[in-house]
Amino acid sequence: MSSLSLKIALAQINFLVGNVSANVDNIIKAAITARDDLAADMIVFPELIVTGYPAEDLLFRADFIEEANNAIQYIAESVNDIALVLGFPELSDDKLYNSAVVLHQGVTLACYRKRALPNYGVFDERRYFTAGNQVCVFEFNGGFIGLTICEDVWQKGIIDANKQAGAELLLTLNASPFNSGKINQREAVICSQVKAAQIPIVYVNQVGGQDELIFDGASFVANSQGEIIYRAEEFKEHIGRVEFINNKPIIGECVPLYDNIASVYQALVLGIKDYVRKNGFGGAILGLSGGIDSALVLALAVDALGSDKVEAVLMPSRYTQDMSNEDAILEAEKLDVKYHIIPIEPAVNAFTGMLAEVFAGTKKDTTEENIQARCRGVILMAMSNKQGKLLLTTGNKSEMSVGYATLYGDMAGGFAPIKDVPKMLVYQLAHYRNTLSQVIPERVITRPPSAELAPDQVDEDSLPPYEILDAILERYVEKDQSADDIIAAGFSREHVARAINLVDKNEYKRRQSPPGIRITSRAFGRDRRYPITSGYKGIKD
Amino acid sequence: MSSLSLKIALAQINFLVGNVSANVDNIIKAAITARDDLAADMIVFPELIVTGYPAEDLLFRADFIEEANNAIQYIAESVNDIALVLGFPELSDDKLYNSAVVLHQGVTLACYRKRALPNYGVFDERRYFTAGNQVCVFEFNGGFIGLTICEDVWQKGIIDANKQAGAELLLTLNASPFNSGKINQREAVICSQVKAAQIPIVYVNQVGGQDELIFDGASFVANSQGEIIYRAEEFKEHIGRVEFINNKPIIGECVPLYDNIASVYQALVLGIKDYVRKNGFGGAILGLSGGIDSALVLALAVDALGSDKVEAVLMPSRYTQDMSNEDAILEAEKLDVKYHIIPIEPAVNAFTGMLAEVFAGTKKDTTEENIQARCRGVILMAMSNKQGKLLLTTGNKSEMSVGYATLYGDMAGGFAPIKDVPKMLVYQLAHYRNTLSQVIPERVITRPPSAELAPDQVDEDSLPPYEILDAILERYVEKDQSADDIIAAGFSREHVARAINLVDKNEYKRRQSPPGIRITSRAFGRDRRYPITSGYKGIKD
Repeated sequence: MSSLSLKIALAQINFLVGNVSANVDNIIKAAITARDDLAADMIVFPELIVTGYPAEDLLFRADFIEEANNAIQYIAESVNDIALVLGFPELSDDKLYNSAVVLHQGVTLACYRKRALPNYGVFDERRYFTAGNQVCVFEFNGGFIGLTICEDVWQKGIIDANKQAGAELLLTLNASPFNSGKINQREAVICSQVKAAQIPIVYVNQVGGQDELIFDGASFVANSQGEIIYRAEEFKEHIGRVEFINNKPIIGECVPLYDNIASVYQALVLGIKDYVRKNGFGGAILGLSGGIDSALVLALAVDALGSDKVEAVLMPSRYTQDMSNEDAILEAEKLDVKYHIIPIEPAVNAFTGMLAEVFAGTKKDTTEENIQARCRGVILMAMSNKQGKLLLTTGNKSEMSVGYATLYGDMAGGFAPIKDVPKMLVYQLAHYRNTLSQVIPERVITRPPSAELAPDQVDEDSLPPYEILDAILERYVEKDQSADDIIAAGFSREHVARAINLVDKNEYKRRQSPPGIRITSRAFGRDRRYPITSGYKGIKD
Repeated sequence: MSSLSLKIALAQINFLVGNVSANVDNIIKAAITARDDLAADMIVFPELIVTGYPAEDLLFRADFIEEANNAIQYIAESVNDIALVLGFPELSDDKLYNSAVVLHQGVTLACYRKRALPNYGVFDERRYFTAGNQVCVFEFNGGFIGLTICEDVWQKGIIDANKQAGAELLLTLNASPFNSGKINQREAVICSQVKAAQIPIVYVNQVGGQDELIFDGASFVANSQGEIIYRAEEFKEHIGRVEFINNKPIIGECVPLYDNIASVYQALVLGIKDYVRKNGFGGAILGLSGGIDSALVLALAVDALGSDKVEAVLMPSRYTQDMSNEDAILEAEKLDVKYHIIPIEPAVNAFTGMLAEVFAGTKKDTTEENIQARCRGVILMAMSNKQGKLLLTTGNKSEMSVGYATLYGDMAGGFAPIKDVPKMLVYQLAHYRNTLSQVIPERVITRPPSAELAPDQVDEDSLPPYEILDAILERYVEKDQSADDIIAAGFSREHVARAINLVDKNEYKRRQSPPGIRITSRAFGRDRRYPITSGYKGIKD
């Protein structure tokens, strides 16, 4: 029987990418808290916590890497009587490693170099790092502990290698980003691995929003049967503690997981909150149309920032129905948000006059619709500029996929919270939010969606019904299915062709869209990298 | 003495990413030309020519990969009596390789899998491909030929391995993107390698523009002394031929290289031409301010597309000086380009009125400047939408670096030709263009640059002088030098701090900028991937 006994703190903390000195201060503070308040023998931090993750091309800067490497000795010397396990970009012989270091009583007890470097999806780790090729097992408190980092424990081989090298307990430092369903998947994969290897695991994940990524936390401890005996709350900072006696973890608090819809909602709230806070904005503004998308974004923004930090702007045109204005006002009032009403007619008329000569003899087309949307963009950006508030863009993933949005118009803004949320999920999230308190008028949820840029316009004039469109898009965009496969699954050739052709030709719009929160397994942006100039046709004519 | 004798055609052709069937047709056509018109025994095509390069995440699509793999047998069966050497994404046992195949008389003679997969700068090859681990030398016409792909021949080891495996001649299939100075560097590196290994090389490079990348061609043949005995023209399609007798290449035509400024100019022209052509635009429009940037872009656009495909729009405001209008008109007239004059005052007044209430009591700031720029953006986008012409954005790299541009204003557009051209290089390019024929008025080159968004405004009110700014930016952005290093090199702390702080905080603007042509060793976009949310400060307060 192993005599490994210790109290381990799990530091699920929200750090800022790029700010080494602030991160170092937070690491030291957390370690002292864990030692003094939790009586922990060891504190485990997430992957690359010294720099934040992902630091992207900051990792190519010699000054940045030097600062991060110098920080290790400084941290080691700053805290005694607790071991710190933390991730940093280790520079050695001109090579950079994604490393985990164990600091104890002023010295480095062990250093492990990540072996499995993910280079798919949103990950570019082989751009920066050299892979390690060694297991790292160190002795502590009468037992042997193995170090691993994130992707390592998704691979059976590395866990087995640790076990063979004598590890009785596995520590895993992570920066594992959220998507819908990911937490269940993560726990299932890792618990089945540790169960097979018969080794307990302490899994510490980063929490917080970083541009398009949300790190959900949900740090956990599983015993050697793969049973989760401790779980920290999702989407929140938390320093928890688990005690091991003779290498058996004592059962602690297991915060239950949110269901899928609630977890997406929480991810969006955290994403908005961190983007605004970490980028130093005084608050947020958005255009409120009376439609479901802006209604949801308003609720998210208020839940993230508070009513007093959010402002809404109604910008009706001649095509705006009365019920749109009524519902928008109702939303703002329900959420106690300051709102302005600025009709766009004067600007639209000005542009129409200015362009009359060059447009003489041409027919009305989407150009005129785009002018309306762009007048709204100018108003919102002016208010954002004047007040230092972040403009939230309210477009959803269905629109982004098919380009049903105006560049520099409704696409204008600094952050697009629901950019990766398909329309049908927008409805589910709105419904979910209303179960907490009724803030989105029922009519907004039930009326047919419309851009209101032309008389009696509804989205279905231009697009397949959203329940069909979203299903096709999930298959084509997220799962890379071919048109033939999608048609074979029961969708009409007409709907498939319409959707795919629009996705194919609208990459140029997506390339200029603001960043937004990734909540699916494949978001536009870093996750789906398509050429703009492309002869690929997802469906042949 | 080797008895390897053959006539090799070098197919420096401009292909379209994603369109496998069109690429296959072009491959077959080129092979027949090489066989019938040039009496070639073999034709060598660029890297991954079947799909185009870079196909990015299209490579994750099973339908696309299947089409590309099926194409190989089809090509093999379509042309006889000439060997075809071409690149394609080879699918084998669920792994994807960046491969070169030799097709002859209907069968595959050899297949090589690229060993050195670049994953730095603009390259993401480890995202898609598994690295090969074998040398591939095949017998042909009485001798032994080794196959290599692009990055392979930048590494000494792989050339030596080919030599040791008996190769007497090296073929290299490339998709090597242009930047200023790259062609000289490429020839120097590769010729020194082949000289050391004493093996001749046939180097075939792709030509054409693909989103941000320009492939410059400049295919060449070097003998075993590393002397270039044949070179195809840069930036043009060309099928050339070199004869080897007893493995000695017969000296052919060596088109001289452009000097640096001229090569950048040609790259920009090709980039505009291909973006417009490959994306199916009817032409291009741009805003003409009377400043140097838009003057240069106008000249580039006309050189790329012809006068009849380009339209210019003058959009004066109360801050526009008469000489700006005069010079803009002169530029349009010299280049025989249709132009429109649309003063922006009516729209600016409309917005000012609409915002009067919410802005009551606030001071004028950049908000009012941005409104002017955004009114121009609305006008230009409306004209682009109505006519199906590409809007060219005229901002330069110095502005993009420090954020001296208005999002959705002067940054609006589908393509930003000089986005990677620093201001001082803009002047050099303007001067160079005027040596071909005088199209940019001298006054435009000599007057102090101004955004003309406020009374008597000049850029130097807000920025260090461009000759200083550009030098700092090159060090900070392209070479990742630290503030301390830059100051140590002789720049004032004040200038360095101003420049670096602006670069650091304007990543959000760059993220929404249109794509543009990469001409330096490090462009914004795929090449320099920085977080927006970042606590990194390049210079401490």
